[in-house]
Amino acid sequence: MGKTLTSRAENYSLWYNELVIKADLAEHSAVKGCMVIKPYGYSIWEKMQAALDKMFKDTGHSNAYFPLFIPKSFFSKEASHVAGFAKECAVVTHYRLKNAPDGSGVIVDEDAKLEEELIVRPTSETIIWNTYRGWIQSYRDLPILVNQWANVVRWEMRTRLFLRTTEFLWQEGHTAHATSDEAIEETEKMLNVYADFAERFMSLPVVRGRKTENERFAGALDTFCIEALMQDGKALQAGTSHFLGQNFAKAFDVKFATKEGKQEYVWASSWGVSTRLMGALIMAHSDDDGLVLPPMLAPIQVVIVPIFKSEEELNAIRKVANEIKSALVSRNISVKLDDRDTHKPGFKFAEYELKGVPVRIAIGPRDLENKTVEVARRDTKEKSLYQITDLEIKIENLLEQIQKNILDKARNFMNVNTYNVDSWDEFKQALSEKGGMIYAHWDGTSETEEKIKNETKATIRCIPLDNPAEDGVCVYSGNPSKQRVLFAIAY
Amino acid sequence: MGKTLTSRAENYSLWYNELVIKADLAEHSAVKGCMVIKPYGYSIWEKMQAALDKMFKDTGHSNAYFPLFIPKSFFSKEASHVAGFAKECAVVTHYRLKNAPDGSGVIVDEDAKLEEELIVRPTSETIIWNTYRGWIQSYRDLPILVNQWANVVRWEMRTRLFLRTTEFLWQEGHTAHATSDEAIEETEKMLNVYADFAERFMSLPVVRGRKTENERFAGALDTFCIEALMQDGKALQAGTSHFLGQNFAKAFDVKFATKEGKQEYVWASSWGVSTRLMGALIMAHSDDDGLVLPPMLAPIQVVIVPIFKSEEELNAIRKVANEIKSALVSRNISVKLDDRDTHKPGFKFAEYELKGVPVRIAIGPRDLENKTVEVARRDTKEKSLYQITDLEIKIENLLEQIQKNILDKARNFMNVNTYNVDSWDEFKQALSEKGGMIYAHWDGTSETEEKIKNETKATIRCIPLDNPAEDGVCVYSGNPSKQRVLFAIAY
Repeated sequence: MGKTLTSRAENYSLWYNELVIKADLAEHSAVKGCMVIKPYGYSIWEKMQAALDKMFKDTGHSNAYFPLFIPKSFFSKEASHVAGFAKECAVVTHYRLKNAPDGSGVIVDEDAKLEEELIVRPTSETIIWNTYRGWIQSYRDLPILVNQWANVVRWEMRTRLFLRTTEFLWQEGHTAHATSDEAIEETEKMLNVYADFAERFMSLPVVRGRKTENERFAGALDTFCIEALMQDGKALQAGTSHFLGQNFAKAFDVKFATKEGKQEYVWASSWGVSTRLMGALIMAHSDDDGLVLPPMLAPIQVVIVPIFKSEEELNAIRKVANEIKSALVSRNISVKLDDRDTHKPGFKFAEYELKGVPVRIAIGPRDLENKTVEVARRDTKEKSLYQITDLEIKIENLLEQIQKNILDKARNFMNVNTYNVDSWDEFKQALSEKGGMIYAHWDGTSETEEKIKNETKATIRCIPLDNPAEDGVCVYSGNPSKQRVLFAIAY
Repeated sequence: MGKTLTSRAENYSLWYNELVIKADLAEHSAVKGCMVIKPYGYSIWEKMQAALDKMFKDTGHSNAYFPLFIPKSFFSKEASHVAGFAKECAVVTHYRLKNAPDGSGVIVDEDAKLEEELIVRPTSETIIWNTYRGWIQSYRDLPILVNQWANVVRWEMRTRLFLRTTEFLWQEGHTAHATSDEAIEETEKMLNVYADFAERFMSLPVVRGRKTENERFAGALDTFCIEALMQDGKALQAGTSHFLGQNFAKAFDVKFATKEGKQEYVWASSWGVSTRLMGALIMAHSDDDGLVLPPMLAPIQVVIVPIFKSEEELNAIRKVANEIKSALVSRNISVKLDDRDTHKPGFKFAEYELKGVPVRIAIGPRDLENKTVEVARRDTKEKSLYQITDLEIKIENLLEQIQKNILDKARNFMNVNTYNVDSWDEFKQALSEKGGMIYAHWDGTSETEEKIKNETKATIRCIPLDNPAEDGVCVYSGNPSKQRVLFAIAY
């Protein structure tokens, strides 16, 4: 069928690339570094968006839309932001094409050069804070709790579908507050929303933590993140939430009158997740036969495949299959009945395994007689015979069970691949033999962090929030440390 | 309050601009021609999106996502497309900035010049058909029914919020079919979806028709459109649906094997509506006090305003107000209870009128005694006393009635401002005195069309689909004509 995947053990990276293509999730486009998200992949993203959007609105946020383009000069206004961001980006310099004099096609019209170049947004803090200046006069205008769903562009030299692409889709929350405490509370709240989303919808356990100074967002006073573990032992940053202090308010002169009538700079947070979550979802759960999707994000939750030899058998099965489909749909389960007679059941089984459909129901002539169906779970590959009575309730329960099982499995994998190490040798050994998440003492200096990175490629993913204080010595320098931090090799 | 609008009679154009700003729908950004869509405006757009997206999915379409950038050379591949489109657009020429040597900020890194310039998509036919080449081999791969929600950029010199902006948000459907008939059927089906959406959700009656050759989409064999009438007598094109024939399939070499094994070019349609619909919605229904929103697109359908003198009164009213709110919410009505004690009722009334909230419920101390509330309709300004019993059912009915009334009013306005004219004098007189939609005979030539446009600014909005054949003579040339066409001055 040409759909067999390289196994994970053989080549994890190749397995991932093949899976993304063969499961019809995304593909490379004619524009270097930019992907096409195909309908099946996009429908998973839509489910993520819908769940996140509801969580944002339930926590008081509204959506808005800001321009794709940012004047170049805006990037120079926040000193650390420009250092971290404004370099690798798409620059619009002209606004017109014209016919080539030799008739060979179109060329850039040099007469249509912009006075100031426009940057395609790599993130929107600058244009948004420039806008907020007009929205905020008094404490009564605060807080502003705004989110934007948008495309952004960061010119990447080495790209991978979903994980790192030049253009990607994301959401970026940008909030404005009267006090530092409120902004920090918001930053932490949204981190928890992300962690909750990852666990409840993606069945993905995450470590919540704080970035080191080195890894902080350009312009932030503090960056929080959620980190997940992939099956190859590498960590993946799945979302970030930044406390921006008054940096952007100062850069764009956004002040408000306090209740007491004083003028003060506004406090800010920003937070985002992107189509990178698609990569995390795929890499965390899938197997050598294809995608494994948590039912809450599966575009098709149940597929029904008739097993038949004759047109007559198919018609009899189709009748029952449609009844089952209706019963499932009435419980908000998304169902596909694949009654094509152009493909064999085995072909269909492999296709839906590849696409990660959580539950497969097969119905043959004998099932009709016995009032049974064969139910196969994608996550465990178990098959069972189900009585047809109350099937929709049984399937509903099964979907919940699958959702939970995928999370349990991932959590177990993370636990098994998480190590406390106490010496440099142990550190290097754990990393090279097993990968995974390594909790080790660190002396708190950027210098040590850099050296460890250079020697092992491992980075400090975060200073975990749930980690107890614990006296120890840095595995690298031997200097004193108050808390273990999370090291891993990361995507 | 600074929220009073210029009246429509005084200056319709100014009234529109002020309304968009003062009702918090959108504003100009720091980037020339690009707007910021504010949370209140965006929430109306979200309701439009949700309704349209459901209609697209109910008619078998899926969403996908294609790159923001299009290689310049793609625009030269379809001859008429390049003529119509590739001229006024944003051109990306570089992919990196660097620090200015003099420390003055960032400048474009001339070493990071793209080999081939990238165009920010003005529309996506070219990149999508280049992609479809890989998706289509056989008739079994057809039809492809894909839609994309995206931002697009067309460099406009004269912009107006929502109506004409350099960047705008839209959806673009791109479908691929095995036969011409199927592609035409799709083109017409989506035109009807747009007309249906305009009438059912926007309360906006439209004329469905076919564009003349002059006004056709660049690359289309046939362009269909829906045209609406604004209160100033100008027409507004609210959506288009194009039959593209095999033009893009030929330009990008997209062929399929028929059932008989022959290689044939694929047939195409494309169709789109944009944030321009926001402009149509605002201009069609609103009045000198502000927005008038059809309930189905209103972010807040009902606002409850307590009328009180003391904290004690407020508390008593708040209790009842919250009960009413819960009862309404349980029927999926979106409700805001504005119990702020920092603003007077009169201020609040004006604010919600400005923002077009369809129903206002006021509750005072006497209402508590009498178990009544005062209900005010935004569309007619009528106020009535309602018994509180079963209020949620009465309000639900009222919202339906308002939705219908707004449509009826707009339909009536369109009827009153639609004229059949039979001579050139009548034509000019109708146009200059009343504006509106003018049905007149036309000889079918681009030459006459151009002359009429130059002399009167009126264009042929469409050749209406529902217009009966009727022999006549062209109002301009006197040559024979088989059908009246729709003329108007247009946005």
